[in-house]
Amino acid sequence: MQNPSPVESVHIPFPRMRSVLERIFERNGTSPGVAAILADNCASAQRDGAMSHGLFRIPGYVSTLKSGWVDGKAVPVVEDKAPGFIAVDAANGFAQPAFFAARDAFLAKVRANGIALMAIRRSHHFAALWPDVEPLAREGLVALTVVNSMACVVPSGGHTALFGTNPIAFAAPRENGEPVVFDLATSAIAHGDIQIAARAGHDVPQGYGVDRHGEHTTKPREILEGGALLPFGGEHGMHKGSALSMMVELLAAALTGGNFSFEFDWSGHPGAQTPYTGQLIIAIDPRLTSGQGFAQRCETLVAAMAGAGQKRQPGSRRHEARARSLEHGVPVEAERWRELLAMAGLDHEESGTTA
Amino acid sequence: MQNPSPVESVHIPFPRMRSVLERIFERNGTSPGVAAILADNCASAQRDGAMSHGLFRIPGYVSTLKSGWVDGKAVPVVEDKAPGFIAVDAANGFAQPAFFAARDAFLAKVRANGIALMAIRRSHHFAALWPDVEPLAREGLVALTVVNSMACVVPSGGHTALFGTNPIAFAAPRENGEPVVFDLATSAIAHGDIQIAARAGHDVPQGYGVDRHGEHTTKPREILEGGALLPFGGEHGMHKGSALSMMVELLAAALTGGNFSFEFDWSGHPGAQTPYTGQLIIAIDPRLTSGQGFAQRCETLVAAMAGAGQKRQPGSRRHEARARSLEHGVPVEAERWRELLAMAGLDHEESGTTA
Repeated sequence: MQNPSPVESVHIPFPRMRSVLERIFERNGTSPGVAAILADNCASAQRDGAMSHGLFRIPGYVSTLKSGWVDGKAVPVVEDKAPGFIAVDAANGFAQPAFFAARDAFLAKVRANGIALMAIRRSHHFAALWPDVEPLAREGLVALTVVNSMACVVPSGGHTALFGTNPIAFAAPRENGEPVVFDLATSAIAHGDIQIAARAGHDVPQGYGVDRHGEHTTKPREILEGGALLPFGGEHGMHKGSALSMMVELLAAALTGGNFSFEFDWSGHPGAQTPYTGQLIIAIDPRLTSGQGFAQRCETLVAAMAGAGQKRQPGSRRHEARARSLEHGVPVEAERWRELLAMAGLDHEESGTTA
Repeated sequence: MQNPSPVESVHIPFPRMRSVLERIFERNGTSPGVAAILADNCASAQRDGAMSHGLFRIPGYVSTLKSGWVDGKAVPVVEDKAPGFIAVDAANGFAQPAFFAARDAFLAKVRANGIALMAIRRSHHFAALWPDVEPLAREGLVALTVVNSMACVVPSGGHTALFGTNPIAFAAPRENGEPVVFDLATSAIAHGDIQIAARAGHDVPQGYGVDRHGEHTTKPREILEGGALLPFGGEHGMHKGSALSMMVELLAAALTGGNFSFEFDWSGHPGAQTPYTGQLIIAIDPRLTSGQGFAQRCETLVAAMAGAGQKRQPGSRRHEARARSLEHGVPVEAERWRELLAMAGLDHEESGTTA
């Protein structure tokens, strides 16, 4: 989603944005290490134009930390289960620090075995999913990850929310260009985008969600307040989106030892917003490919997609936004930036491009 | 798809159907081993009600074998690339015999490493995909497979067919019930189902395909004759189906060393129908799961889906058809069965339930 009103925006240098967010996380009870990882993740989403997972998420992080629902100082426990299987107990902390705690061991397993998986459980994932796989593609690996979230999607043909928005993210290296990356919710729309539509007062298309009575609606507030999202796939393909969402539950929760999207109970933690589930990451070392190199073949496919008339390859919009942000600063609404500076205890400082 | 006219059907015992198909394959130039594998695969699809990949496919197999496009006597070469990575050169033969040639070594790798992949290249896959993964779930494994096919799907936003129907199949074990299995084309409809609709003279819904001018059409013949299919996902989610189809190309072709769906040229082999591409299979041993057993967790999710109002879990329709077929015989149109008996050189024999 593009920033809706560029005239009211300021442009903040990426390192400055990251350090302000880091300060907010630390002031709200995370360890310095967790703060650094989450700040980098969130500022990167904003930098890359993924506004629904950018600074928009900070109040949710803070509210969740204040509620006691998540442990911002959790120390992940890495378990070596088999030559290709690494498990991480996130210990009720965020998923990203758990991933980083096991990252080097995971990469060694992928290179030694050709393929490996990392199964993270007891984790909270409140961010975009592509930042977890794009760096693996930069290491020359093909990577796939799934995370389940919180019950807000009705299974195909059903009447009650059960699945999360359950995204699937994939990244693959190219020989010359930026990695091919996609990150798609298996719901008709991401939960963050529904929240943004509700805030902006925009309707959403038919087929995105149902109201509290299970009837289709185009009003984001009716979807958010007692209603539910629908799986992606459209009228005739919704069973496919639903099947993929089921697969995500099985891989991200059943296989890791984490909660299904419908299992955790945060009612004792008012203000909690982060789903307490699991995440699976699979990576493959394509150096073992027979024939031409994988990254070269990836270039061939990307060129063919352009030749077939596809305007953008998955990930290219983010790479373009990233280049603009790194040159001109990361865009953010001026009012939101002032709020963030206040949350960081920096409200006496100037804001804007030189901040 | 259900058999459209049950009154004209005969019901053939499964072992009899399989042996008639085996004879047809052998009479058309396959080795006995290849004949046995393909006959079992094709009869199983018919038995399970997957008519678009059942006996309907036999004339295509025969026509392809006669054209010299595929080697029905190919001997696959299995290559041990790494502890978790096994490659198979199908040597211009069918994918299923290549899979079987490496199956035991693959299972040993999965159990030793927790995860492994099998990368099949130079292979022809002309069958349903779920028969490749369901048996792995019966071994207690979680399995995922992708195969690319032939250029007949326009990428999202494009104008020229590039991707295959590029299905994704997944299977997972349950503690008590039949495995959870799905097999979904990343196109809006499977190519076999478009052929069946064309044969039956039925229109298909808007959004399934375009005609030779790139315009949306509901006429299956316009889609088949110079037109193309669209990715699944519906009006607002087609970019997601397209991204998944791209992922299938990268995993099934780039990673294996096989052809992309748009690369092979069968123009020198009139009658050829089998795509000459690659296939990737990933399997995980869920015994390493932390917490409750995977198969038990899978039961929990299936029960929750039923509780949320989902009428059928993925795969249940096939399991029901299988049970009926094994009790009453596998249904097939009487005229088609007579044709098959003739192709097997058995036209002097009686047909029907006692055949």
